[in-house]
Amino acid sequence: MARIRLGMVGGGKDAFIGAVHRYAARLDDRFDLVAGALSSTPEKSMESGRALGLAEDRIYPDFDTMAVAEAARDDGVEAVAIVTPNHMHAPAAKAFLSRGIHVICDKPLTATLDEAKELVAVAEASDALFVLTHNYTGYPLMRHARQMVADGKLGNIRVVQVEYAQDWLTEEADADNKQAGWRTDPARSGAGGSTGDIGTHAYNLACFVSGLTLDSLAADLQSFVLGRRVDDNGHVLLRFKGGARGMLWCSQVAPGNENRLTLRIYGDKGGLSWGQENPNVMEYTPFGQPTQILTRNGASGAQDGVRIPGGHPEGYLEGFANIYVAAADAIEAARTGRKSDALYPTVRDGLAGVMFVDACVRSSANDAAWVSVADQ
Amino acid sequence: MARIRLGMVGGGKDAFIGAVHRYAARLDDRFDLVAGALSSTPEKSMESGRALGLAEDRIYPDFDTMAVAEAARDDGVEAVAIVTPNHMHAPAAKAFLSRGIHVICDKPLTATLDEAKELVAVAEASDALFVLTHNYTGYPLMRHARQMVADGKLGNIRVVQVEYAQDWLTEEADADNKQAGWRTDPARSGAGGSTGDIGTHAYNLACFVSGLTLDSLAADLQSFVLGRRVDDNGHVLLRFKGGARGMLWCSQVAPGNENRLTLRIYGDKGGLSWGQENPNVMEYTPFGQPTQILTRNGASGAQDGVRIPGGHPEGYLEGFANIYVAAADAIEAARTGRKSDALYPTVRDGLAGVMFVDACVRSSANDAAWVSVADQ
Amino acid sequence: MARIRLGMVGGGKDAFIGAVHRYAARLDDRFDLVAGALSSTPEKSMESGRALGLAEDRIYPDFDTMAVAEAARDDGVEAVAIVTPNHMHAPAAKAFLSRGIHVICDKPLTATLDEAKELVAVAEASDALFVLTHNYTGYPLMRHARQMVADGKLGNIRVVQVEYAQDWLTEEADADNKQAGWRTDPARSGAGGSTGDIGTHAYNLACFVSGLTLDSLAADLQSFVLGRRVDDNGHVLLRFKGGARGMLWCSQVAPGNENRLTLRIYGDKGGLSWGQENPNVMEYTPFGQPTQILTRNGASGAQDGVRIPGGHPEGYLEGFANIYVAAADAIEAARTGRKSDALYPTVRDGLAGVMFVDACVRSSANDAAWVSVADQ
Amino acid sequence: MARIRLGMVGGGKDAFIGAVHRYAARLDDRFDLVAGALSSTPEKSMESGRALGLAEDRIYPDFDTMAVAEAARDDGVEAVAIVTPNHMHAPAAKAFLSRGIHVICDKPLTATLDEAKELVAVAEASDALFVLTHNYTGYPLMRHARQMVADGKLGNIRVVQVEYAQDWLTEEADADNKQAGWRTDPARSGAGGSTGDIGTHAYNLACFVSGLTLDSLAADLQSFVLGRRVDDNGHVLLRFKGGARGMLWCSQVAPGNENRLTLRIYGDKGGLSWGQENPNVMEYTPFGQPTQILTRNGASGAQDGVRIPGGHPEGYLEGFANIYVAAADAIEAARTGRKSDALYPTVRDGLAGVMFVDACVRSSANDAAWVSVADQ
Repeated sequence: MARIRLGMVGGGKDAFIGAVHRYAARLDDRFDLVAGALSSTPEKSMESGRALGLAEDRIYPDFDTMAVAEAARDDGVEAVAIVTPNHMHAPAAKAFLSRGIHVICDKPLTATLDEAKELVAVAEASDALFVLTHNYTGYPLMRHARQMVADGKLGNIRVVQVEYAQDWLTEEADADNKQAGWRTDPARSGAGGSTGDIGTHAYNLACFVSGLTLDSLAADLQSFVLGRRVDDNGHVLLRFKGGARGMLWCSQVAPGNENRLTLRIYGDKGGLSWGQENPNVMEYTPFGQPTQILTRNGASGAQDGVRIPGGHPEGYLEGFANIYVAAADAIEAARTGRKSDALYPTVRDGLAGVMFVDACVRSSANDAAWVSVADQ
Repeated sequence: MARIRLGMVGGGKDAFIGAVHRYAARLDDRFDLVAGALSSTPEKSMESGRALGLAEDRIYPDFDTMAVAEAARDDGVEAVAIVTPNHMHAPAAKAFLSRGIHVICDKPLTATLDEAKELVAVAEASDALFVLTHNYTGYPLMRHARQMVADGKLGNIRVVQVEYAQDWLTEEADADNKQAGWRTDPARSGAGGSTGDIGTHAYNLACFVSGLTLDSLAADLQSFVLGRRVDDNGHVLLRFKGGARGMLWCSQVAPGNENRLTLRIYGDKGGLSWGQENPNVMEYTPFGQPTQILTRNGASGAQDGVRIPGGHPEGYLEGFANIYVAAADAIEAARTGRKSDALYPTVRDGLAGVMFVDACVRSSANDAAWVSVADQ
Repeated sequence: MARIRLGMVGGGKDAFIGAVHRYAARLDDRFDLVAGALSSTPEKSMESGRALGLAEDRIYPDFDTMAVAEAARDDGVEAVAIVTPNHMHAPAAKAFLSRGIHVICDKPLTATLDEAKELVAVAEASDALFVLTHNYTGYPLMRHARQMVADGKLGNIRVVQVEYAQDWLTEEADADNKQAGWRTDPARSGAGGSTGDIGTHAYNLACFVSGLTLDSLAADLQSFVLGRRVDDNGHVLLRFKGGARGMLWCSQVAPGNENRLTLRIYGDKGGLSWGQENPNVMEYTPFGQPTQILTRNGASGAQDGVRIPGGHPEGYLEGFANIYVAAADAIEAARTGRKSDALYPTVRDGLAGVMFVDACVRSSANDAAWVSVADQ
Repeated sequence: MARIRLGMVGGGKDAFIGAVHRYAARLDDRFDLVAGALSSTPEKSMESGRALGLAEDRIYPDFDTMAVAEAARDDGVEAVAIVTPNHMHAPAAKAFLSRGIHVICDKPLTATLDEAKELVAVAEASDALFVLTHNYTGYPLMRHARQMVADGKLGNIRVVQVEYAQDWLTEEADADNKQAGWRTDPARSGAGGSTGDIGTHAYNLACFVSGLTLDSLAADLQSFVLGRRVDDNGHVLLRFKGGARGMLWCSQVAPGNENRLTLRIYGDKGGLSWGQENPNVMEYTPFGQPTQILTRNGASGAQDGVRIPGGHPEGYLEGFANIYVAAADAIEAARTGRKSDALYPTVRDGLAGVMFVDACVRSSANDAAWVSVADQ
């Protein structure tokens, strides 16, 4: 089937999550990025669009212009990825949804609750789809965990412990830290700091896996860094409908935690524990039996969203891709006769490997005698 | 710069490593796959090529036809990925190298040492590049480790312990297991079984990181499964030039090991330990000081080959891509008015997140009183 | 110096913590257990005392009789270990303290707050010492952590996350489970179930290491098992004097957690993470630097309370003691000519080891040639 | 039953393993240490014996004198622990065995093979028992593993990977390092350095658990530290009777390894992996099923040699004992009116715990409202 024509709003130079969306869109070859309004100024948008190889007439100064123009094209974008700071999500999404263009939007949905409600109304009135990138629900073991809960493997859920801890905002951010800048500005991020930025991920994942609906909460939010205008640490007690209880901790001031999102769920028949920093394994304990280590695509059967075999961690593809990057560097240099210092395994490395096998076989055939790898 | 035009030999239906090469080539948007001779029969090659969306006139019945035809085109492939069983590497590589087309070849280089030596001669006489996909050298922490060794952080290297253990050949493979079939057939895999298939990876990685050159080895190879014609377990003692010693263990019959490639290197000033099943962390001990946990893109400074921040494990992109896959499924269904049951976070999930933040802020402002998330 | 004469109240047959106190008292050879009122009935007390080798005239039917009698002896106990269910702590402790006998008492202090306040008054009015066995403060790395915090290694403490999770009360306990019986009976355990039994340990350890004083808390306690009269799960938000915040989770219904007490403390200069199920290591992150793995008696310098070198886990002594137990079994059997099937390494095992070394040396001297271990 | 009267040869001031033997003998209250020849000189032996509280007439200048004198006493030692450097094991053991006194001897058995064979003859001709302290066989999970292998849980054993790595001899030891001194002196340690000191442990444990008998080996031993007269690193290939193969690595020059003894065993039905630095857990994989985490005294059923419940790591007793040590310090100070700064939880800590529980219950009863812990 033809690739889906994709546009992007935000994600220009210095952005973080825009590049992530592009990697994600590319991996499975289902999308073509063909248009964008990538930055807050027309100049930077043009510069960023050129760097991505977009046609110049489809690099737009702002999302409104883009929505109008793309909707008018026969080959206009079918979907748009919105990867701006939070406060731009709602206006950008509405501009595309109202023109029947599907929206793939980063989280949190909006900066304010009023905007969120309005956007829901618009999205649900539109024929276009709205996809929110709570990406942690995309991990195969989280999908497997959700299925296990649904299948009753844990019994009735009693306790949900979810945490998302980081340390990058432990100190006051530098003035030129673009990521920290908007994330700690309530006008752009919304009233929640760590709660909005990462707490929403934790909350979403806990609900996704447990299948529970939150009833009420009690929250104690702090801004530990002097002068910070949004919370950088949140402690939240959770009461779910049906009687399960939980705790949610989000923090951006916990040294030693890079991006430690963990989820533990306990029912009357078993428990689960998973952490996204090593997402390829999950511990499962049927009550009264030994804890099992479930692996992505391993003996446990987690299959949804899997690309490669168990033991090849998610990320194997990225290491592999680094060899392709080096090959591309070398090949592009070769096109123009430039020299390249790209680091990749060569035919000589290959010879060394075959000599190794040959030496192993010769040695073993001779009662494990020492043989030189250079012999023969 | 224009994307590199890429062809592929092998990698059709039922293949494993071909798809991995395609993911890797796509991730950074540096290649366009435009031609292929994907299977051992013309019919399967055509079927596989169509599934990949290749133009029909660039789906070839065999690699020779492909090499001739592509070399004659103005827009012919600049590079070819060779992802066949081992015994086909050499003839395929020579067909392309001799026509000036760059080769990206899976390991091990060839099935036999004679082929390997001949291929080296051809490759080194060609203007075209030859890249061997010893992909584990692409992990950022392995590149960082190599740099640390080169910088003298470990002092003089004394001991190298490298292992690559799997369990998928613990029992005799089913007759229809294509992967097991050619890997245990000496005519297609070469004289080494586990030594060729995974031992060469371990050996290459040990040399890559340590910077050492192997002098001699003593090997004790076994075929534990009755009737197996190649080794499924190898124990190898290593003597490196300069006096370092090592051990290499490769096994495909070790239950509990999915793909456990580990490397430990010890010098007179420090030690390193890494395992590819959790490739985002590496332990480093400066002698006499506490062990440090180095992370990809974390405080340790591993930067080469990094796409995303520390704490976001390699694989984060794949989880993210699963959301894009679901979006693509839903969008393609929408194109034709079909219903889709693709699982992705919706605008309602987004509203729930914003309501969560709102409830947190309201509760915290009221001394952590319980608030309903539905209130407002 | 002469050993301290020790008595024990509680800790008879079927008790858990009494045996632990005896092991602990014996390990460093500073105490002699010479008297006891070990069970709730005189008959069981006598039986238990005999099994421990106590002189019959110092096995008492109850703690009052014991306190009176021992206080009157010239060689009476100098100290008493109180290891009864919680509701007996206060009356027993007062009986000994009022006679000038030191008390070593299990936690929690008492079953009720009124008792606790009264006992404090008695203890502080007495010349005798009162030691409460919050044993987790005895782990060397917890003492080291306390010192690190005091030394400012973490800066100002902001966040304390402490958890103590078990699963043994996930289902209703059997009627004859003595441990579960009194621990879920508010008359004997006090109003707190998991909060009293394990929450107090978590709370004590958090304060011990952090040096913080709790100001206020908000708690959501649950009794998930139908009919249970005390809490089996507790979620607690903590506010410490000076502004630090924390969360405490205690649970006895979390499948997969045997005895998972964990403590994490974060300040503006660094973070610490420790878990008692592997108490020999602690992670320490100075903000902005790699995480360090501190070990008991390793390079980190944890020395207080250490008996053996780093890498020899706490517990090494117990494995060693198991060999001594086997030796004792065999020797006692030899005393009476009985046969023993005690499992211990024999002189033949020793010969095998020396033959192994001899074979290693011979083989290595001969270029790692294969040698039979039986040769010579 | 009466405690066994125990003597000790070696183990005086500055010794390491002697104190370990004493802890081990004391833990279960089966032995009384009553006599010793503790050091290489009469003066140091006397000083060490007094420090241990031995009667002066049972502190001997050398083991021969001790053996003669103790054998002549009615209350003479029934057993003797020999904890000297290796070269003294044989003469000391023979002195006691020949007088019918049981011997508990540290490993390796002797410094030379000739001595070993002679000692075996003496031991087997004697009525006295000979126990060798290969203490790692005393870990409950190693006993459980042995039973699992014997029960066929792993099927036919194919591969045994055993390692024992340390780093304390990475650099030349200081001249006054008593432990390093004799362990690197072939006259006292024997021809093997790391092979004798720790390789024998690894070898013994591998045989103990696997039930296999070694047939032959090929060894490559190194002395990496300049001038060292015994091996400090050993790489050994193993061939067991019946066809299983293995590798043994012992090293005392591997930075980052404190005392890393690990054992992995693979058969045609499953695999096991265990490391003594966290001896409370073992991984077990039945082929084709998820890996299970077996715990000492947990759901897996390891019971032999267990003192305390699962989740309470071996070492829990030592933390507990540290509270008793503090109590003893304080009590001994109180005896003489001295001040003590012993660190132990006090009655005030106990009150704090009860106030915590009380506050939890009050808060939870009031819908998790904040309550002051000082209220009431």
